[in-house]
Parts: sequence; structure tokens; C-alpha cells
Amino acid sequence: MRTYAIVGTGALGGFYGAKLQRAGLDVHFLLNSDYQHVKQSGLVIESIDGDFTLPSVNAYDRAERMPACDVVVICLKTTHNRLLPNILPTLVKPNSVILVLQNGLGTEAEIAQILPHHSVVGGLCFICSNKVAPGRIHHLDYGEIKLGAYADGYQAMPITPMMAEIAADFRAADVAISPCADLLLARWQKLVWNIPYNGLSVVLDATTDRLMADPHTSALVAQLMHEVKLAAGAYDRDISEEFIHQMLAYTLKMTPYRTSMKIDYDAGKPLEIAAMFGTPLQFARDRGVELPLIGMLYQQLQFLNAATERRRENSTVDRV
Amino acid sequence: MRTYAIVGTGALGGFYGAKLQRAGLDVHFLLNSDYQHVKQSGLVIESIDGDFTLPSVNAYDRAERMPACDVVVICLKTTHNRLLPNILPTLVKPNSVILVLQNGLGTEAEIAQILPHHSVVGGLCFICSNKVAPGRIHHLDYGEIKLGAYADGYQAMPITPMMAEIAADFRAADVAISPCADLLLARWQKLVWNIPYNGLSVVLDATTDRLMADPHTSALVAQLMHEVKLAAGAYDRDISEEFIHQMLAYTLKMTPYRTSMKIDYDAGKPLEIAAMFGTPLQFARDRGVELPLIGMLYQQLQFLNAATERRRENSTVDRV
Repeated sequence: MRTYAIVGTGALGGFYGAKLQRAGLDVHFLLNSDYQHVKQSGLVIESIDGDFTLPSVNAYDRAERMPACDVVVICLKTTHNRLLPNILPTLVKPNSVILVLQNGLGTEAEIAQILPHHSVVGGLCFICSNKVAPGRIHHLDYGEIKLGAYADGYQAMPITPMMAEIAADFRAADVAISPCADLLLARWQKLVWNIPYNGLSVVLDATTDRLMADPHTSALVAQLMHEVKLAAGAYDRDISEEFIHQMLAYTLKMTPYRTSMKIDYDAGKPLEIAAMFGTPLQFARDRGVELPLIGMLYQQLQFLNAATERRRENSTVDRV
Repeated sequence: MRTYAIVGTGALGGFYGAKLQRAGLDVHFLLNSDYQHVKQSGLVIESIDGDFTLPSVNAYDRAERMPACDVVVICLKTTHNRLLPNILPTLVKPNSVILVLQNGLGTEAEIAQILPHHSVVGGLCFICSNKVAPGRIHHLDYGEIKLGAYADGYQAMPITPMMAEIAADFRAADVAISPCADLLLARWQKLVWNIPYNGLSVVLDATTDRLMADPHTSALVAQLMHEVKLAAGAYDRDISEEFIHQMLAYTLKMTPYRTSMKIDYDAGKPLEIAAMFGTPLQFARDRGVELPLIGMLYQQLQFLNAATERRRENSTVDRV
């Protein structure tokens, strides 16, 4: 039986980790602020697929106390990636696989630098879930994962046997999962949605339905999507007009949705700007491609993020 | 003695009109919601140049009741320009001059269509003033006006004798005023400041000092200014790098400032998007020039403006 380490037990890690444990796998959860609570009371999953509770889980507050695991699942927000060089080496054994369930671009390459001899697999999660209280995850919709192996420079890679085995574990845990042969294409495809909706939802204080109902912002969303297409094209990844059209149509039909970046922003948390905007812009620039509108969105988000940070610091000072 | 009609007695019209009347000119004020108050109590000017009160002014609630005047000064927000075709014809006699003290681009051309046989002069106001209560204007800083004659297609025009006479009246009223030979250049120059600061202050909920203190937004401000330079260039108007540099340096030194568009936005009023963004974008497009960042700012402002409008309508419904 494969062992799983869940690094970051929040909306994503709490949900998928709990599903894996419920299916009988040996799962170890790394926590931060919720450690005491989860150690004592376990995890509660309120899901459209059916609620369930795990009264007891393997909870840890420090990576050093965890066993090395076969699969190390990175579920941290990318804003905490500076912790990875300390956490990862203690969690792996020679054949461990690192599975990166994060948004944006670039984390797989960072991890390959920290652990150059380990397999790194990227996973894209299509899920609406929130942590609503310590150890309590609310799963609203979807949940599918798309897997792709990482190789130097994000070159396309065949599906490895290990990926198939991980996929089998997730399927046994009732999670839809599909391995694919081109991680970079999958990441750019996800950015087609993430960049416009996450960015504009924060800057314009809006849910997806509002952005789509207004002719100016729905046009702007499409323009931003085309800039992502341009960047993907610079890496010989083709995002079709049809794909963009589908993303727009899909969002138009979707239940009004507050994006993950907007949820973070409203909670006064740091925004995943680097992984979702900064690195894609840098990737494009590396191939001589400018993305003016995404660049402007990036600048606006940096401004708003810095303002939040200032408020956070002030409130810390107030408390002292 | 020349007679003046002030169309729109707010932060601008109330201030300049009161100064003209104090200097002994015959001034007639058109008002809307403040009519009763100003008719009874006159105008109060609280100015850094010295406070003064006009206990009695010629106040009107309808243009038809006003006498035709030598100079008709348009001080409405451009969001009310749809009223001009009804107001203007009743206020002019054959030799009247229309003086447009508005922001943005395009009103002079609109007025030339309504009154094809009258002289139209554009005036750019460099002033910080607010209406703080009915008939009460707070003049915080500056106040200079730059004048330029309008001619078909905004071609450059010599300074006319009538402009010199109007300038003399304003100078007698203690207002700094300088006629210039190229109205379109002056309008583009003013847009170099107005477009980035007005737009971003609304979208990012920020004063000018905050926008300049952040490296991302101060870079974005400069990029937006360069797009205005590009548009002006398409009309053979040269905005130098030195001019842009001066605008940035000047704003950096300025007292933290809430822009006029931000003041309107915070008050739940319609924004001057058409004159300040829409028409400049159209001017550029007419010459085959795209301004992607200004276009995005325009789309964002339209979205926010529509949201305000929705709130305004809902609150009207609530009151019924």
C-alpha cells in the first residue's frame, strides 16, 4: 500500500487526503495553524458527493516528524513555496514521487531543483472547495484532477507507470483523474481560465457571473484568454479558438463563483500572483512575447496585494 | 461689459462664476438641485486665495429663463452633455462665444454641431476644487485655465481677439489664464495626467500618492502616459518624454490627491468615461492606433460604472 504525505491540509489537501484515507490508504497530514484541532478532532468533509468525517487522522505540525512517503502531495498555496526547500527533503525516500496540486506555473521546476533525482508530477485540480473552519472542508462542486509528468523545460512526456498507479489510488478514493502526456499544455489551458477570472474578480470585486454579464468585461476576459493562447503558442502548445469559446460558454453557464484569488483577497491573505501571473509573464518574455493586458492585471494585483500586506502589518502592530 | 452664462454651478462653475461676478461682471448661473438654496443664499467660496461670499446671484433653474449671454461657459460634467442641444440654443445670440471648461476630448466638436455658426473655445482647468454643500465651493489649490480656439477637426488656430478679451475678464477676476494656439495638443497633454490617475484611482481605490509609491502602479502610470503620447502623435501632436517625466515628477511631489473621477465614484455619480477614455480611444482608432492598456482601463471603468448604476437604480426602487 502506497503512503501519502499531504503538505498543506486546506481546501484541497484536506479534501483529497481525506478521500484517500477513507479508501484505506495510509495518509499523513502536515498542518500549520489547524494542527491541534485536527489532531484532536480529525477532518470533516461536507461534500456534494456526500458528507463524511474522519475522527482520527495522522496529523503533524512539523515535516521532520512525518515518515518519508511514496507520494508527497503539495497542496500549499504557492505563496508558501519558500517553505518547500526545508519541507521536501525530509519527506522523501529514493523512489518517492512529488505530486504538485497547485495553481499557476513553475512549481514543478522549483521542486526539480530541490530534488533533482525524484519524479515530479503536476496535477491540475478542477474543483470548488473551501476550508470553512479548522479541519472542516466544504466541497461545493467538481473535483477532477488532470495529471502530467514534469520533465526538464516542461517537455512533453509519456504517461509513466507510477502516474497510472497514483491515478488508480485516486480512482479507488472516488476521485476522477486523467493522466495526460503534456503537462505544460494542461497548465496553459488552465491559465486560460485562471488568469482572467482570478485577476479581474479581485481588481473589480466581482463574481464570474458579473464579469460575464457585462459586455466590456466579457470582452476583456476573451482578450486576456487570447494573450494566454499567444504565450502557449510561443512554447508550441496550441490553444484553439474552440477551447477559448468553450471556457467562455462554460463560465457563462456556471453558478456565480467567487474565485480562489478573490477568496484569499477577501480574507486578507497573500495572493498567488507570482505563480499565476508573474511566471507566465516571464515564460512569455523568455520567448520574446509581450502580454500587455496580463502585464497590467499583474501590476494592479501587485498594488492591491501590497495594500493588503500593509493593512496586515498595521493590524499586527496594533495587537502588540 | 460682457455677460456670462455659467452652465452648471458646481466645483468649477461656482468657483469661476463667483470670481467673475466679484470682479463686477454680469454673471448668470444655471443650477439644478441647488437652485432654491443658491437663489436664496447665494454662493460661498472657501478658497486658499481667500474666502468670500456672494449673498445674491442671478440663479436660474431653466435655461429658457436666462438672458442670451456674450460668453456661455460650459461647466457641466460631460456625463450631462446630452442636455446641451436643449440648453445651448436659448443661451446664445449671434456673437456669443461658447467656452468649454470640461475634461476629456470631444465636447467642442459636439457643440460646433449644435451651433455651427458660433465660436467655440476650449478651456482646460488646472484646479483642485469641490462642491462641499449646495452653493458652497471649497477651492483647495491651483486654478489656472488654458484656452484654445476650436476649429474643424481640432486644427491648430491663431489666438483670436475674443479669446484675448475673455482672458482679460478672467485676469480681472484674479484667475490665471493663458491662451494657446493648439487646443488639441493641450487636450492630449491634459489627458497624459487624467487618463492614468483618474482611471487607476477608481479601479484600485487609491489616491495619487499611493499609485506613485508602488513600483508596479507607478510603472503602469508611465505606460499609460506613453499610450496617450502615441495617440497624440497620430494627430501630429508631439508629447515629449520630458513632458511625461515632468508629469510624473510633479505628481510625486503633489499633496495626496483624490482625483475628480474618484470623487464622483465615491459619491455614486456617473463617471466621465466617454469624454476621458472613450473619445480618446476612438480618436486613436480613427488613425489606426490601438491603445491596449487604456482600452483595458476603459473596460474596467465601464464595469464599475455599470455596477454603481445598478446600485443607484436599486436604491431608487427601495425608496419608492
